[in-house]
Amino acid sequence: MTYRHLLGTEDLDYADAIETLDIAEEMDQVSGREIKKLPTLRGRTVVNLFFEDSTRTRISFEAAAKRLSADVINFSAKGSSVSKGESLQDTAQTLEAIGADVVVIRHPGSGAPQRLAHAGWIDAGVINAGDGIHQHPTQALLDAFTLRRHLHTRAPAGRDLDGVHVAIVGDVLHSRVARSNVYLLTTLGAHVTVVAPPTLLPVGVETWPATISYDFDATLAGSDLDAVMMLRVQAERMHESFFPSAHEYTRRWGLTDKRVAKLGPSTLIMHPGPMNRGFEISAGAADSARSTVTEQVSNGVSVRMAVLYLLTAYAKEEDKA
Amino acid sequence: MTYRHLLGTEDLDYADAIETLDIAEEMDQVSGREIKKLPTLRGRTVVNLFFEDSTRTRISFEAAAKRLSADVINFSAKGSSVSKGESLQDTAQTLEAIGADVVVIRHPGSGAPQRLAHAGWIDAGVINAGDGIHQHPTQALLDAFTLRRHLHTRAPAGRDLDGVHVAIVGDVLHSRVARSNVYLLTTLGAHVTVVAPPTLLPVGVETWPATISYDFDATLAGSDLDAVMMLRVQAERMHESFFPSAHEYTRRWGLTDKRVAKLGPSTLIMHPGPMNRGFEISAGAADSARSTVTEQVSNGVSVRMAVLYLLTAYAKEEDKA
Amino acid sequence: MTYRHLLGTEDLDYADAIETLDIAEEMDQVSGREIKKLPTLRGRTVVNLFFEDSTRTRISFEAAAKRLSADVINFSAKGSSVSKGESLQDTAQTLEAIGADVVVIRHPGSGAPQRLAHAGWIDAGVINAGDGIHQHPTQALLDAFTLRRHLHTRAPAGRDLDGVHVAIVGDVLHSRVARSNVYLLTTLGAHVTVVAPPTLLPVGVETWPATISYDFDATLAGSDLDAVMMLRVQAERMHESFFPSAHEYTRRWGLTDKRVAKLGPSTLIMHPGPMNRGFEISAGAADSARSTVTEQVSNGVSVRMAVLYLLTAYAKEEDKA
Repeated sequence: MTYRHLLGTEDLDYADAIETLDIAEEMDQVSGREIKKLPTLRGRTVVNLFFEDSTRTRISFEAAAKRLSADVINFSAKGSSVSKGESLQDTAQTLEAIGADVVVIRHPGSGAPQRLAHAGWIDAGVINAGDGIHQHPTQALLDAFTLRRHLHTRAPAGRDLDGVHVAIVGDVLHSRVARSNVYLLTTLGAHVTVVAPPTLLPVGVETWPATISYDFDATLAGSDLDAVMMLRVQAERMHESFFPSAHEYTRRWGLTDKRVAKLGPSTLIMHPGPMNRGFEISAGAADSARSTVTEQVSNGVSVRMAVLYLLTAYAKEEDKA
Repeated sequence: MTYRHLLGTEDLDYADAIETLDIAEEMDQVSGREIKKLPTLRGRTVVNLFFEDSTRTRISFEAAAKRLSADVINFSAKGSSVSKGESLQDTAQTLEAIGADVVVIRHPGSGAPQRLAHAGWIDAGVINAGDGIHQHPTQALLDAFTLRRHLHTRAPAGRDLDGVHVAIVGDVLHSRVARSNVYLLTTLGAHVTVVAPPTLLPVGVETWPATISYDFDATLAGSDLDAVMMLRVQAERMHESFFPSAHEYTRRWGLTDKRVAKLGPSTLIMHPGPMNRGFEISAGAADSARSTVTEQVSNGVSVRMAVLYLLTAYAKEEDKA
Repeated sequence: MTYRHLLGTEDLDYADAIETLDIAEEMDQVSGREIKKLPTLRGRTVVNLFFEDSTRTRISFEAAAKRLSADVINFSAKGSSVSKGESLQDTAQTLEAIGADVVVIRHPGSGAPQRLAHAGWIDAGVINAGDGIHQHPTQALLDAFTLRRHLHTRAPAGRDLDGVHVAIVGDVLHSRVARSNVYLLTTLGAHVTVVAPPTLLPVGVETWPATISYDFDATLAGSDLDAVMMLRVQAERMHESFFPSAHEYTRRWGLTDKRVAKLGPSTLIMHPGPMNRGFEISAGAADSARSTVTEQVSNGVSVRMAVLYLLTAYAKEEDKA
């Protein structure tokens, strides 16, 4: 049962996804307690192996691991022997040798977590915390968790998100969040519309299980959206030739106050953070009562606790076998 | 009772200050034990949110929190999403969402801790660990703790530092340590003389509850000082036009061996560290028996334990109300 | 009994070395347990004081300390007040004051750990985790531990490594690993041959208790080596005038597949890591069954647990005296 590594959402089936979300619900109970701590991972070592800066994701995993009583070792590749030319293989073997039970890896190169998990260098469970423009599966799980909390009752019979319609809007080309969500949300039964400028869609997007739209207003007008998930724009990309101008981007693909006014009364506003207020999302949209932004961050800790638990539980079962 | 945040010393009344120092005395007992650890903050999360480098202050808070069994998460703003343009608001909401109970913030901008505490973004207690040239209240508390240990018995009836005379000497203009100490020490009953070159005094210094002097030797000669607190000079400032030359600074406002010889037999020598030996303080003064420099650092851990305890105890009482 | 600091291997006598290795064997048992944690250092504080980047060494010490339940504080000198001109003395006194029980120091300057230990600034035990081109004693201990595990039975009567022959090959000039190993391994009874280009041997190498060779092939041909320990080449050195060209280096002093074929059937291949595969060691040699590279890293945690334990046990005995 369940998985040995969490590398992407394409390969996560319905049962595994639901088990993860159910365990995350249980983990979430701990947040309400006086002592926010479980002994589950005592004596286990979780390594945060970050080849790319991402304080938000790192501290979310760190909080999750510590809440489970694991020892956490942060390994920033800046200033590590990686910069002295050490290969991913040597790094992996070092982590294995110091007794890592789970390695959380963030890497600018798409596919690095897959290599780490499958090259046979390491027994530890591997969690992809973002690889290049490829996948960011715990982000998708926390988004799914958030959606399920709000919309679960709509689909009592079939899959948990049956009948749910989500629009993912913005720079899809460079977004591992978009890709991970499209696969996970459809596995859970949702219908996803991807909305982006034509120049910001990746090659092969036509094979994704999603509807493609270039026109945000048409998507808003024509359908009953349950949630609008805005993607972060990397400021540094704005100067690239295939990118619309900032003004053009906001006007056509930003969640402006005017567009918020057109949303249905219960449509959720989501954003993985950090937000560029006034650019891809207005301050009004970001801070409105229907915004789940802070809730998403909070749910991230519970979801990561669940994944850490499942990976180490899997390892234990293997030991017995 | 007591406070929800610790942002500055202006607003710390006598009762709160004394309660903090008394609890710090109790915390200090732990240092003498075989197992230097209390279970007080088990399951609580303390985040060190540092937008500016300060290893000394960070490890002091980290040691204090760990001695109370809290989980500590270090968040250096270098390489964080802050550098990608994330606002203080988004950072705060992230920390709130991951379950921070206390946020220790160091920031180059005066007033940032106040915004963090009062903007309504966050339920966590906020401790100002230094904001711009404004305040550094735990430094003032540890200085007061040190002074009280040595001089307490002088004022048995009134306030704990009644009748105590402290000179604070040096670059007052850029010193949050000076400002925080002036307010706290006078609240505790001490008389403070601020000694600085005219160009290194801030606008509005005349409203401070302190005597102003431009002449260190006159201050030394004319009074019975209980302590001389030397301020650190930032080397990078020496090249600014309003700054005296290094030679001139040492000659007129440095604590040279010659000036040490003029001190009364029990006058204490204080410095917040790190010291520029041979510049604002001579090596002889720094290492003399009357120097409290190491003691101040050690007291810092006890004082920070007390503040962490008070902030979380306050939060608990609020929950009950 | 045993030592108060671990600064180098010259001053480590046979009894101390063996006691350390024996305790490391006991510590190693913990790795096999479900809960890889001992309460031995609960309430103790271990500070990793790194003036130079070395993630591998830092996380090995961090894992060792956490496995013994110590609190760990990482202090990277980058961005610390050291860069603001604070002296080693002030840093030491700060660490002492915050209650450090053991300071693990890595420093680019040869001799810095000795100053830290002996200047009287500090009561904490000091572990040298690499100082300039001088010593790296825990690396030598883990190498000895690895050798003893494989070769122990050969010398049942005398010293544990009596009759063992080890070649240490490469850039000996810049290698603290070579120097530390030469002294420790000979103390344990081994015979060491140092193999290097003449320009990569340090002044005074003739006083080392080792045979010197300029010819790797001759060393391989003429003797029955139990282990070949390859040294890492720092890429940045290759452009220095006294260095052979990369091609020349590999051809004459690299452990190529051709040379592996000439090794005896049980000769071990060692490397402190990280490896430059294809340069000082071929990928085939690095990954062969006789390579102990990963084992060395793993043994490093057990050895460091033993040293941390011995230093704090020593401190305790002193307290009683």
